[in-house]
Amino acid sequence: MNLTKEQKQEIADQQAQKSETKRVTSPELEKILYEALPVLDHGFVRVVDYMGDDTSIVQSARVSYGKGTKKVSTDEGLIKYLMRHWHSTPFEMCEIKYHVKLPIFIARQWIRHRTANVNEYSARYSILDKEFYIPSKDQLSAQSTSNRQGRGDLITGEQADEVLKILKDDATRTYDHYEQMLNERFDGTVIDKNKTGLARELARMNLTLNSYTQWYWKTDLLNLLNFLFLRADSHAQYEIRAYAETMLETVKKWVPITHVAFLDYRVGAVHVSGKGKKIIQKMVKGQKYDFESSGLSKREWNELMISFDFKEHIK
Amino acid sequence: MNLTKEQKQEIADQQAQKSETKRVTSPELEKILYEALPVLDHGFVRVVDYMGDDTSIVQSARVSYGKGTKKVSTDEGLIKYLMRHWHSTPFEMCEIKYHVKLPIFIARQWIRHRTANVNEYSARYSILDKEFYIPSKDQLSAQSTSNRQGRGDLITGEQADEVLKILKDDATRTYDHYEQMLNERFDGTVIDKNKTGLARELARMNLTLNSYTQWYWKTDLLNLLNFLFLRADSHAQYEIRAYAETMLETVKKWVPITHVAFLDYRVGAVHVSGKGKKIIQKMVKGQKYDFESSGLSKREWNELMISFDFKEHIK
Amino acid sequence: MNLTKEQKQEIADQQAQKSETKRVTSPELEKILYEALPVLDHGFVRVVDYMGDDTSIVQSARVSYGKGTKKVSTDEGLIKYLMRHWHSTPFEMCEIKYHVKLPIFIARQWIRHRTANVNEYSARYSILDKEFYIPSKDQLSAQSTSNRQGRGDLITGEQADEVLKILKDDATRTYDHYEQMLNERFDGTVIDKNKTGLARELARMNLTLNSYTQWYWKTDLLNLLNFLFLRADSHAQYEIRAYAETMLETVKKWVPITHVAFLDYRVGAVHVSGKGKKIIQKMVKGQKYDFESSGLSKREWNELMISFDFKEHIK
Amino acid sequence: MNLTKEQKQEIADQQAQKSETKRVTSPELEKILYEALPVLDHGFVRVVDYMGDDTSIVQSARVSYGKGTKKVSTDEGLIKYLMRHWHSTPFEMCEIKYHVKLPIFIARQWIRHRTANVNEYSARYSILDKEFYIPSKDQLSAQSTSNRQGRGDLITGEQADEVLKILKDDATRTYDHYEQMLNERFDGTVIDKNKTGLARELARMNLTLNSYTQWYWKTDLLNLLNFLFLRADSHAQYEIRAYAETMLETVKKWVPITHVAFLDYRVGAVHVSGKGKKIIQKMVKGQKYDFESSGLSKREWNELMISFDFKEHIK
Repeated sequence: MNLTKEQKQEIADQQAQKSETKRVTSPELEKILYEALPVLDHGFVRVVDYMGDDTSIVQSARVSYGKGTKKVSTDEGLIKYLMRHWHSTPFEMCEIKYHVKLPIFIARQWIRHRTANVNEYSARYSILDKEFYIPSKDQLSAQSTSNRQGRGDLITGEQADEVLKILKDDATRTYDHYEQMLNERFDGTVIDKNKTGLARELARMNLTLNSYTQWYWKTDLLNLLNFLFLRADSHAQYEIRAYAETMLETVKKWVPITHVAFLDYRVGAVHVSGKGKKIIQKMVKGQKYDFESSGLSKREWNELMISFDFKEHIK
Repeated sequence: MNLTKEQKQEIADQQAQKSETKRVTSPELEKILYEALPVLDHGFVRVVDYMGDDTSIVQSARVSYGKGTKKVSTDEGLIKYLMRHWHSTPFEMCEIKYHVKLPIFIARQWIRHRTANVNEYSARYSILDKEFYIPSKDQLSAQSTSNRQGRGDLITGEQADEVLKILKDDATRTYDHYEQMLNERFDGTVIDKNKTGLARELARMNLTLNSYTQWYWKTDLLNLLNFLFLRADSHAQYEIRAYAETMLETVKKWVPITHVAFLDYRVGAVHVSGKGKKIIQKMVKGQKYDFESSGLSKREWNELMISFDFKEHIK
Repeated sequence: MNLTKEQKQEIADQQAQKSETKRVTSPELEKILYEALPVLDHGFVRVVDYMGDDTSIVQSARVSYGKGTKKVSTDEGLIKYLMRHWHSTPFEMCEIKYHVKLPIFIARQWIRHRTANVNEYSARYSILDKEFYIPSKDQLSAQSTSNRQGRGDLITGEQADEVLKILKDDATRTYDHYEQMLNERFDGTVIDKNKTGLARELARMNLTLNSYTQWYWKTDLLNLLNFLFLRADSHAQYEIRAYAETMLETVKKWVPITHVAFLDYRVGAVHVSGKGKKIIQKMVKGQKYDFESSGLSKREWNELMISFDFKEHIK
Repeated sequence: MNLTKEQKQEIADQQAQKSETKRVTSPELEKILYEALPVLDHGFVRVVDYMGDDTSIVQSARVSYGKGTKKVSTDEGLIKYLMRHWHSTPFEMCEIKYHVKLPIFIARQWIRHRTANVNEYSARYSILDKEFYIPSKDQLSAQSTSNRQGRGDLITGEQADEVLKILKDDATRTYDHYEQMLNERFDGTVIDKNKTGLARELARMNLTLNSYTQWYWKTDLLNLLNFLFLRADSHAQYEIRAYAETMLETVKKWVPITHVAFLDYRVGAVHVSGKGKKIIQKMVKGQKYDFESSGLSKREWNELMISFDFKEHIK
């Protein structure tokens, strides 16, 4: 990730700001506020604002439950309880705003999470940067043969070189044509003074989906955790997972108690269906059980055994 | 509004907090942070947290429009432009959290605005305060005869005294019975040690709708302005308007430029239908116009004339 | 539940409607369309419109996955897969609209589910019915001593009679005073022709929270299932559970395949935390485990054992 | 727009469905149900399901206002009243589902409207169609010189030919390379049996933004009207306006009374700011007014005069 001089200056200026506030602050998060955390080859994630911390969750839960929560002795105990019992509204009381630079095909996955506020760079108004995502060689995977939306073995050798060449050449050529149609370079230089350029809102359609865009993305902690649960998961596409993992680190700094509870009750948790529960019960009690009489499909059976790391039972 | 000793102490403690932050701050809002602004007889509004200020709106708009916004010279010019042209997402970049104490029948109107986060005091867990809203005499209005959801002339004299007596007596009696069924007073004193009390989630159904509840209510600036547009309006019920007007004052302190734009382009604005526009055009051009050929209903005609203060044309 | 003559006629008229449509229909749901299914003493649930059925879920999933889903042989297999893997958007493609009559204190719980459309009877415009919820004797429970928001043993004998008397008397008295302040009976009769009545928006505040209101409530299938998961659960307050259970029956008629998947993967499922998973693994493998070294709180340990019905391990 | 044999058959099958229903139906909309209404060069809009009609709006309004609405004599009068006074919830009681085929850069504008349900064709699972949007010559406009997000004069002659050639060549080349990287043609033919193809989720990044995608898009009538208000407007990009205008025609068939009210109170309406109102008042009363003392910026002044077609006053 290379930041322009201008961007570096903007970040330095923001980080130099110091104000006094009566609001709660999150000291660890303050340390990295505005910093551009690199993701992929040209992307980044920056925390640009936040509201609340672990104590805000506790405070609003205590408003809800009134005198009833006095007996829960610690903030940690209460946050764990709320997470375990799927209480949602106290986690909505914290808010965070990110500035993200990301490839368009990832932005299209991301935007499906609707409960957030978004301001995206508009290619109707302005010219997009000349930057495209090109996967590194260790991410150049073949289509999975077992999972229709997954990746399989790495592609290597000549075929890998060929793929990378295609991606680079096509992105570069379509971008050059974009400038040509606009009759203007990214830096504002007019190419041919005797011509008028094509409307930006039209010219942009020639760009490839690995072009980088950027946006401000603001959401509450509950919806952020839902996003991270799905997108930091091993089934998520690697490129969005890279963003989610970086953001998960910012959550750790922001609300450390909630972060621990999230790892235990969501990320590391197992969800067992009614039929699956009966198998587990029999396994514990040493009763007879087998796939054939379980009522589970083979796929479901295997998902259950994998979720508990009972690898010897995988069919 | 009487705060308990405990509440006063909590507010004093919160206001004594001082932290350094790199975030943007709103100095005027900081001055009243946590303060209980009185509304109605026992209610209040407190700003307990916020994120962003006028510059946050500008900043996110500039991210959207990129280099394209450099020519708009001032923050004020840009905010006015955004408000005038109904750009919504930049205003979503600011967030605020209120602590509100309000009568239940008003809470029921308020909650219809769904794009907000809410943590309400739970009467399943805890016992509600013994406080009810009793209107002041200058708000004791008769049903409007012209508007099915409005108020007409004041009720006065004996009838007013009778109404106030009913409201006070019934609220007190139902609350006393609430305690009796719970077998517990608000302060936690058990009434009869040989009895168990009715479940709180049941006993609460005996309370009247003017009982006070409280909640944390968090929303973004766009949705807050939509709420205030509807609820600070003269057609809104007086009791919710009292809250909206107090909150509008906090908006003025928080985002002063946006507040001015809101007054000009929303609160003080007029919306003219296609048919109404034709009438205005004729009036300006000195052409013949009349109600009969306008295609407007009498009600619509009057609404149009009132909106421009053309009182001589009201039918 | 007693319907007025007028209501009965309206239902009969709606049920007599017959139109031809090219839309998908749900034959079992059509059979009970518009019918008032009784809940509690005076409440009801009516399905008044719907869109889509099980095949709509399948169809939209196939649009998403394109040719990729051709290999999943059956609709049932696909719906189970979607439910198991928390795919949400296909279930949003079905929509349903209910007409519900319910006590106000239950309406206040219900409305916290924000992703729905609501039109409620307005007591600013019109006079509320003279109907209140009075619990039956088998629901008159004491406050739970172990769970701050639950019910414990039944209250019986004289104390029960006393509670019921309070609830009836107070609801009746406050309603009578409501009419007196309005100077108008529910049926529109003016009480004293020489008086004007108090504005409806004010008089309503004297009613108790067990007064019945009604609304149209429209939501998509995904959000309906989330609502039912929480509100048909044994931890939900009995009064809202009664509505949820009736609605769950309508789901069974509407989308029978989804209903089965919902019971297996949600209602009957168990969620095990990361720490809990380690205990289960040890139990299955016959390894040493105990509460003390589990890292679980006593409450958590018990919740885990109860969820698998391992009652002998409850502490 | 060319439909495949398969698509034509699917539409024919859906249109041949006939069921009896007790639900309200919209006869004019039924006539075009499932039909592919062509938009742009390869796109379409299809209504695939709907719930409710004009009477559903009326019915839910009458539930809200109870006996209070009996005096409004007609459905049309009530719908006009609701629209004029910005009542929102009754319009949420109708729902519609579209199947849309559209270029990706338009999908990215569209998805910013968050209050809708979406199932999009997934290029992680399946291979996208070989179809790209190429503007017709009468839409090949230069960048506007006055409006940063608008179009100016047509580009013609050689320059137009050059632009069209670039768009076609680049889309074709990047698509061919997409197939090459996948090692698979759109129709499923494997290109080289000795190779494995790149994962679909990666290969798609090479496509240009004018590639067509498709989705199911479901929303309620209120949010649909908000979408159409913004996107059928002359300031919207032509390509999304083409979709909005086609959809507006389906609204006309579905809810004809609401459609008329929408045209009068939204599409054809004028919004006048507080300062603008003062100018209009002076114009009507024949009082002195001028730009200099108006407090309006030149841009605002002109917007006001244009909105009333007072062209002689444009500066």
